[in-house]
Amino acid sequence: MYNLLKGKKGLIFGALNDKSLAWKVAERAYEEGAELVLTNTPVSMRFGEINELAEKCNSIVVPADATSVSDLEMLLDKTTAHFGGKIDFILHSVAMSLNVRKGRTYDDLDYNYLNKTLDISAISFHKLLQTAKKKDVINEWGSVVALSYVAAQKTLYRYNDMADAKAMLESIARSFGYIYGRDKKIRINTISQSPTLTTAGSGVKGIDGLMDFSERMSPLGNATADEFADFCITLFSDLTKKITMQNIYHDGGFASMGMSYKAMKMYNQALNNSINSDEFSD
Amino acid sequence: MYNLLKGKKGLIFGALNDKSLAWKVAERAYEEGAELVLTNTPVSMRFGEINELAEKCNSIVVPADATSVSDLEMLLDKTTAHFGGKIDFILHSVAMSLNVRKGRTYDDLDYNYLNKTLDISAISFHKLLQTAKKKDVINEWGSVVALSYVAAQKTLYRYNDMADAKAMLESIARSFGYIYGRDKKIRINTISQSPTLTTAGSGVKGIDGLMDFSERMSPLGNATADEFADFCITLFSDLTKKITMQNIYHDGGFASMGMSYKAMKMYNQALNNSINSDEFSD
Amino acid sequence: MYNLLKGKKGLIFGALNDKSLAWKVAERAYEEGAELVLTNTPVSMRFGEINELAEKCNSIVVPADATSVSDLEMLLDKTTAHFGGKIDFILHSVAMSLNVRKGRTYDDLDYNYLNKTLDISAISFHKLLQTAKKKDVINEWGSVVALSYVAAQKTLYRYNDMADAKAMLESIARSFGYIYGRDKKIRINTISQSPTLTTAGSGVKGIDGLMDFSERMSPLGNATADEFADFCITLFSDLTKKITMQNIYHDGGFASMGMSYKAMKMYNQALNNSINSDEFSD
Amino acid sequence: MYNLLKGKKGLIFGALNDKSLAWKVAERAYEEGAELVLTNTPVSMRFGEINELAEKCNSIVVPADATSVSDLEMLLDKTTAHFGGKIDFILHSVAMSLNVRKGRTYDDLDYNYLNKTLDISAISFHKLLQTAKKKDVINEWGSVVALSYVAAQKTLYRYNDMADAKAMLESIARSFGYIYGRDKKIRINTISQSPTLTTAGSGVKGIDGLMDFSERMSPLGNATADEFADFCITLFSDLTKKITMQNIYHDGGFASMGMSYKAMKMYNQALNNSINSDEFSD
Repeated sequence: MYNLLKGKKGLIFGALNDKSLAWKVAERAYEEGAELVLTNTPVSMRFGEINELAEKCNSIVVPADATSVSDLEMLLDKTTAHFGGKIDFILHSVAMSLNVRKGRTYDDLDYNYLNKTLDISAISFHKLLQTAKKKDVINEWGSVVALSYVAAQKTLYRYNDMADAKAMLESIARSFGYIYGRDKKIRINTISQSPTLTTAGSGVKGIDGLMDFSERMSPLGNATADEFADFCITLFSDLTKKITMQNIYHDGGFASMGMSYKAMKMYNQALNNSINSDEFSD
Repeated sequence: MYNLLKGKKGLIFGALNDKSLAWKVAERAYEEGAELVLTNTPVSMRFGEINELAEKCNSIVVPADATSVSDLEMLLDKTTAHFGGKIDFILHSVAMSLNVRKGRTYDDLDYNYLNKTLDISAISFHKLLQTAKKKDVINEWGSVVALSYVAAQKTLYRYNDMADAKAMLESIARSFGYIYGRDKKIRINTISQSPTLTTAGSGVKGIDGLMDFSERMSPLGNATADEFADFCITLFSDLTKKITMQNIYHDGGFASMGMSYKAMKMYNQALNNSINSDEFSD
Repeated sequence: MYNLLKGKKGLIFGALNDKSLAWKVAERAYEEGAELVLTNTPVSMRFGEINELAEKCNSIVVPADATSVSDLEMLLDKTTAHFGGKIDFILHSVAMSLNVRKGRTYDDLDYNYLNKTLDISAISFHKLLQTAKKKDVINEWGSVVALSYVAAQKTLYRYNDMADAKAMLESIARSFGYIYGRDKKIRINTISQSPTLTTAGSGVKGIDGLMDFSERMSPLGNATADEFADFCITLFSDLTKKITMQNIYHDGGFASMGMSYKAMKMYNQALNNSINSDEFSD
Repeated sequence: MYNLLKGKKGLIFGALNDKSLAWKVAERAYEEGAELVLTNTPVSMRFGEINELAEKCNSIVVPADATSVSDLEMLLDKTTAHFGGKIDFILHSVAMSLNVRKGRTYDDLDYNYLNKTLDISAISFHKLLQTAKKKDVINEWGSVVALSYVAAQKTLYRYNDMADAKAMLESIARSFGYIYGRDKKIRINTISQSPTLTTAGSGVKGIDGLMDFSERMSPLGNATADEFADFCITLFSDLTKKITMQNIYHDGGFASMGMSYKAMKMYNQALNNSINSDEFSD
């Protein structure tokens, strides 16, 4: 639409299907004139949908395990070979917790699972950056963005060990942002996005309590995946060259709210009912 | 109980009645061995209850308008005269918004009222510190505490211009904390306290929605006025000499929460009801 | 360059001369296709340079005192009349401290000056927003940006009462951002910009210590006024619709740094010298 | 001195020698009336100094590897057996980075070392809390404190992967603080302490650049180990029951400073010299 990424080359991690944030970012980046390489885990390839995206965006797909340095080396080699040059922007949208999946609560973590959570959701980001810097494959004033969530700063029921992984991810963005900025003028930021409905999340009832609360707390409402993609484009563009080492909230205002009228009104309904019926205990 | 403030001399602003935070602080400071001077506005004297407190704490009451530099000069002179020496600690618990009282919403502020809100709730703190520094009436390693609220950082429905005043108050604590620390080794902090029931707040229904939400969000529950006093004592004591320019949350964990199980459960009750009855619009 | 603001109408406060951040923003916004109205104080008109800018940007200049509600009403009326429609974006770059100008230190503030600092640098922002909301002159999904500085959160020697004003300004952005977002889908943010050389700042020696420190601390170096303008454009565009109630650092990474190699190296030079010469006292 | 911990039972991790923060905390806690159990790694026992401390504090030493759940189980069993009851407070002062020790820079991390850094410096804290909760060995209203550093939020040259570990540590304090608070009324906080001279740090020159910078930036100067112990005592006492899920800065004001007069003066000396001698490049 604006040619904001004309001539730029980008690498996108984490597009699984058309509900993925990374999928939307790839589509928007392509619209804005970027050349792309897509990557995801070998396992996720089985679903095959990423190939549709690749076709749409005239890009290639390189399967790679983001926790494997050798896979990342291979990925970056293939990417620069495909582009015939260095990379301008990268989206890291990679996260998974076996503790969450297997229903382990935070006071009953499996520590092998925790190591996996950290390796996949945080350390993979460091491995990507370190491998890219050693190979010197990102152009000066390049931009790297990773996906975070407000749970990195505020505790949300059931977010579990992913909260700790996101806190570490944001720290890596700062720590590496300092070094990569100083040495190569490359900026690194994270975006803290509203909760968004994904394949896994779209259950029968259709509306999840936390998403509803978040919607009513946020003066502008929850941010959608399309809106996430729009914002991501600005961070990849040349218009934000001096923004680095930050976590920016793209959440309709949620992170700056303590309590909204709309959420309080809903809450009070339950409160009034429970008082009337003497169910005040918990 | 512990003699934590034995031999220390303190000045307490803002004790109105036995529900006031400042009242509890005075009681606890006295228990811990401190000598006290109490102050409040001339108007608040009419209610007379502060004289009970003074008697209980073997202290005097000096009426003073905290927004008047000449009143503050008089107050500090009388205080040091009474003590026969310098002051060791001060509590500033002074806040008022005519916009809130008169029901002006935040998008319909009266700017004369706003100026009063700022003068009473924030600038009075600077006036107190500047007057005290000029008169050099606080002992080295003295401690000054002002009362803040989480609204200084996160927006809460209806907290109105008091949020801006508290943000400014916390900034004054930092700005003056730097100078007073550097020049006289005096520390300045704010405490962000849970909402507490006060005379004004204790309405008919007895339970306010926000206090209930806050109670369920905070893993340890809302902090009481007595607990506030306990914490305040530690900040006045010699055990916290190197803590300065900070806002510390004394709130049972509220400020670090994004969503708790207990609050979500209550919220979901309303959500489920409203979905059933098609009242989802708002 | 990208037509990011094509068809949008913007009001710019604070362009004084071609060193002003607001000046650069006006130029860039015009390049990106926006129609503009410029405003500044009647006094600043005397210097006349803003008329050059207006000519360049094909805009008009409306002198107005940003602390006067009636002036703001007049300004908004003339602006919408000129546009023949509502406003899409506003830049508030208005700040002044007589305490700083007159050399009053922070522990010797003149309280009339302080009131002026607050009125000009913070309350004017509320007045603008309240007046705009009452007149309903900003389009849905409009964007308002005000200029802040890291001193709002961290104390910097000599920043004086401007630190408190900026803290209040950021609070106003949150407080009003909630209401304006909820009611009209309008977003409000502040940008915390690197120190930039202005007319006043460009002294004889040419390099100021704090700017040098800031340059060496920031991995990407200080952000320039041109870069500020670039970033501002993205916040005015349709690509950042769900970002609100935030302060974003546009500072080359400064705000996320505790200590850099480059700054430490410079500091150590002095340290080593002063140790050698027994000048360690201070 | 005050009997603040009379009748309380505490477990202290990380006392190595009389320069250790944990050593000072043990001494102060004992003075305040607490019964103690000390623990450290089996390797650190070789130095033998901890036995002196144990004798002084009338406590026992239980060697344990804090990264081993079975060692932690054994440790907690022996501790409660020794006390004949539950624990009231715990200090976690455990951190180590092989990347730092072996001189690996942050853009050349060894990932096995990183895993060790995380396991020792962050995950060990979760393992301790999870094991304690499963065994239910902490009394209601017990207090757990872990040692952090400002690098968790701001990047400091050479702090390396320890910054990421501390960010994760603070997240664990929040995440587990929520659950342990909700279920058992136990509070969990971290203290961000000034840099302090340790055995390793006390080199020939005697003054480290960062410590000098920190000293001059902090209005109250760097906090000492003795002062750390004093503050720690207040967090273990009954006076701070509603403080949880927080990181509190015990640093003389450093974390709230952007630039001080004293640090700027020193910096400017170098700046002026380097300008004079044309050494401005870097």
